[in-house]
Amino acid sequence: MSELKGFTPPLSATGRSSLVPEPPWHYSGDLLTIEYRTDPDRVIELLPDPLEPSDDPGAVAVLFADWQSCRDDGQEQLDPVRSQYKEAFIVVGATYRGRPASRCVFIWVDKDFALLRGWIQGYPKKLGSIWMTRPVTVGKAGPRLEPGGVLAATVAAYDRRLIEARVKLERITDSMGSVNAHPMHHTRLFPSVDSSAPPALDELVMLRSLAFERTDVWEGEPELTFFQSPTEEFHLLEPREMLRGYYTSVGFTFGQGEVLEDHRVEG
Amino acid sequence: MSELKGFTPPLSATGRSSLVPEPPWHYSGDLLTIEYRTDPDRVIELLPDPLEPSDDPGAVAVLFADWQSCRDDGQEQLDPVRSQYKEAFIVVGATYRGRPASRCVFIWVDKDFALLRGWIQGYPKKLGSIWMTRPVTVGKAGPRLEPGGVLAATVAAYDRRLIEARVKLERITDSMGSVNAHPMHHTRLFPSVDSSAPPALDELVMLRSLAFERTDVWEGEPELTFFQSPTEEFHLLEPREMLRGYYTSVGFTFGQGEVLEDHRVEG
Amino acid sequence: MSELKGFTPPLSATGRSSLVPEPPWHYSGDLLTIEYRTDPDRVIELLPDPLEPSDDPGAVAVLFADWQSCRDDGQEQLDPVRSQYKEAFIVVGATYRGRPASRCVFIWVDKDFALLRGWIQGYPKKLGSIWMTRPVTVGKAGPRLEPGGVLAATVAAYDRRLIEARVKLERITDSMGSVNAHPMHHTRLFPSVDSSAPPALDELVMLRSLAFERTDVWEGEPELTFFQSPTEEFHLLEPREMLRGYYTSVGFTFGQGEVLEDHRVEG
Amino acid sequence: MSELKGFTPPLSATGRSSLVPEPPWHYSGDLLTIEYRTDPDRVIELLPDPLEPSDDPGAVAVLFADWQSCRDDGQEQLDPVRSQYKEAFIVVGATYRGRPASRCVFIWVDKDFALLRGWIQGYPKKLGSIWMTRPVTVGKAGPRLEPGGVLAATVAAYDRRLIEARVKLERITDSMGSVNAHPMHHTRLFPSVDSSAPPALDELVMLRSLAFERTDVWEGEPELTFFQSPTEEFHLLEPREMLRGYYTSVGFTFGQGEVLEDHRVEG
Repeated sequence: MSELKGFTPPLSATGRSSLVPEPPWHYSGDLLTIEYRTDPDRVIELLPDPLEPSDDPGAVAVLFADWQSCRDDGQEQLDPVRSQYKEAFIVVGATYRGRPASRCVFIWVDKDFALLRGWIQGYPKKLGSIWMTRPVTVGKAGPRLEPGGVLAATVAAYDRRLIEARVKLERITDSMGSVNAHPMHHTRLFPSVDSSAPPALDELVMLRSLAFERTDVWEGEPELTFFQSPTEEFHLLEPREMLRGYYTSVGFTFGQGEVLEDHRVEG
Repeated sequence: MSELKGFTPPLSATGRSSLVPEPPWHYSGDLLTIEYRTDPDRVIELLPDPLEPSDDPGAVAVLFADWQSCRDDGQEQLDPVRSQYKEAFIVVGATYRGRPASRCVFIWVDKDFALLRGWIQGYPKKLGSIWMTRPVTVGKAGPRLEPGGVLAATVAAYDRRLIEARVKLERITDSMGSVNAHPMHHTRLFPSVDSSAPPALDELVMLRSLAFERTDVWEGEPELTFFQSPTEEFHLLEPREMLRGYYTSVGFTFGQGEVLEDHRVEG
Repeated sequence: MSELKGFTPPLSATGRSSLVPEPPWHYSGDLLTIEYRTDPDRVIELLPDPLEPSDDPGAVAVLFADWQSCRDDGQEQLDPVRSQYKEAFIVVGATYRGRPASRCVFIWVDKDFALLRGWIQGYPKKLGSIWMTRPVTVGKAGPRLEPGGVLAATVAAYDRRLIEARVKLERITDSMGSVNAHPMHHTRLFPSVDSSAPPALDELVMLRSLAFERTDVWEGEPELTFFQSPTEEFHLLEPREMLRGYYTSVGFTFGQGEVLEDHRVEG
Repeated sequence: MSELKGFTPPLSATGRSSLVPEPPWHYSGDLLTIEYRTDPDRVIELLPDPLEPSDDPGAVAVLFADWQSCRDDGQEQLDPVRSQYKEAFIVVGATYRGRPASRCVFIWVDKDFALLRGWIQGYPKKLGSIWMTRPVTVGKAGPRLEPGGVLAATVAAYDRRLIEARVKLERITDSMGSVNAHPMHHTRLFPSVDSSAPPALDELVMLRSLAFERTDVWEGEPELTFFQSPTEEFHLLEPREMLRGYYTSVGFTFGQGEVLEDHRVEG
């Protein structure tokens, strides 16, 4: 019989059909970050053992990103429908073995390749519709990157608006915020095909990005509105105290993750 | 710390956020099947060890389905955007330990919950845009389920038309075709987060459906057109000899799969 | 120079590029209707001179439809993405010159050909995302057309859920409701390219359908939920008293409308 | 009865429901232009009386644009799903009464408000899926605006890829090309509701933009691939000789058009 190839299914004789190719995966895009504080208990209940609360246990970041991504040969850049995607995600802080950690607890994205790449990294991705203002340098149909410029972003899923965010720019700063600043600590859980058995995959992993670059970071006053959905629980992280908003363009490469703990129970 | 719940991510304190709930999953829908023969070598190169060719090794089925699905409590039926989806898929035959087997080698679907359910079952799903004629009983804007009625279906992905299919109905028959008639034998492959390590999951599984029901099956003359895409290889299964087309409505429940072989290599 | 052809733009030497072909347009589909009463003043303020209130001036119908449509040669039936579309619309009653009239005041549809056909007929169409339960005859993933079966439908636009509707079936009846039962009386208003000038087109038209067919009509108990959107006003027609819900499959042909009054002011 | 308000349907007591508000409409976005020559007869057959061929009668421009747009109060900027859209269009040259003219002969856009604004201006818009590379300043997932950077764009409609375009950047230049440089001369044709009558609207109009701004224009080597579709004829304008490609960001305001000739025949 044949040797099937492919980093992910569909497998084939060449591996060319794979939905996601082997890393490295390169990213360039724009990032809008809003930080706030919620009820710490709502964050703590989203941290699995052995993650412990951060020293600011109610801190949350909501991020919106408008990406281009590609593999080393950059082929997706010549077919932008395969390179561009948008996502919205919610990150909380934690501590792992005494070291600060970040963890994405909810995320929506608008392309299948990004959905699967996320699941490989332990991002709990669902599909959504994400929109994000682009700053402009000519014309009247967009904000400038200058004090007073307002950037807006929204995410919806299953025909329901979920989150609306706005940041009114004030000044260039040297921080992108702190909640999303640490290595991501995610749970990769994948069910068994026999649903009476324990999960086939249940591991705590840590991700690191390489070759991170960014432009100037703009800081400003944030606004955030959460709506409810029968299939979502992000609204339990409702804001109690707004902190700051940030906008910047970033570039990085994802190459490797590390399995910190394997929680699989042998069936 | 907390006990996180959920059959799939996102995990939460309640499990309500999961993209996919625990089975059983119930399905009702319409199914258009086209069977044909291609170069047997193109099928054989898609069969991993220890699957062996079927006794009709070049036989292929292309299927289009327009589904409603729900969990036991049927909640998705009250929000049809969460219940309805369409898919197109390509199935080949094989033999496993001397028993006839079916295997889905390429598949496209239009909702995220169906994408993840498929991956749990070893269907190599990508997102696509699927359209399928519905027979009608009044008016002039659709075929009747009667001799001469023509049913059409198409699938596209990443803004490219991939497959067009048509079946001209002839008669009611008692078969739905043979290629997709056997238990599905799928490879569940999921990469490690450390791409230098072997896959975290690599198993051969078998699926069985329960409580299968169907309406009359209509049989007819099929037509099939394949287009090329830089990211797809289904066109290697190009038709050499057309067989038959079938149309029917079906209902079934998926509950359990079985792990036949664990091919994981310890890293 | 050349003679450009086409029932609608884009015009070309052959007319084949037209977004919408010349009528007749044939329709077959499923129709869910919910009737209720709202504040009559909210209906009356949507009736232009010389339309007058109906004898049940607060009566409103919300309808959801899942269509196939085609021209005489039926070519769209062989490419279902060009034949199928869904729509949701709100109809009120009126009186014109003493005769009962129906008028569509808000409508959303999910394909461009249906959007333009609607504008030609005076339907004030916007794009939306419409979903509608399909009754099934096998399996557990859908209601049966029988007492107790529940049909649901939703419409969203610009990533916001607008309307949710449900009908719990009770019995076969001989009416499809009364609000949408009369000839449609619509305003065809199209702006001048010089926005300081009066509209280029401002006429009251009446539409009639031909060759109407239907299956049995099921009647039942309706539920209706309206949500708000910054760009919509349908919620002003909020229910005060629910009437009945209806489900049926229909077929008809649109061929001709009639201009009742030309309200154009010469610029 | 009431005074219905609205620049376009749906009309209401406030006018707030209109799909398109009264101009001015402000635009800011990125524009990729590819110029080439085709068979002049294919262009000439798309020019209605009294438009005459340009002095370079086979010259054609294919343009891709990624826009934000808003009304004077800029409200769409706070809800980017209502502000952002993409379009692809084909422009030819002509002469009107001895003066150079531009004319859009085919165009696809991805939002309903842009579709209707286009029809008001005589752009023969259909819906499509448009994608366009964005240049980046950080990371590896996009070209830089520098010699050798490659920008790509595609358009699809009804699940079929229609056009692929690429421009390899060479240098900053002072031209955006010539085919699209003149006032747009469009035919506003709108059918009668009585399809046996002549069109209700048939006029030749001229559009002018105000307050035009642009960034540097990059010029480079273009590539263009046309695909066929059963409902499109743009492929008749196939390239015989490639000219140049251009990339720039632009801003402008549309306020007013002018009716040059009314070709309506009284029914």
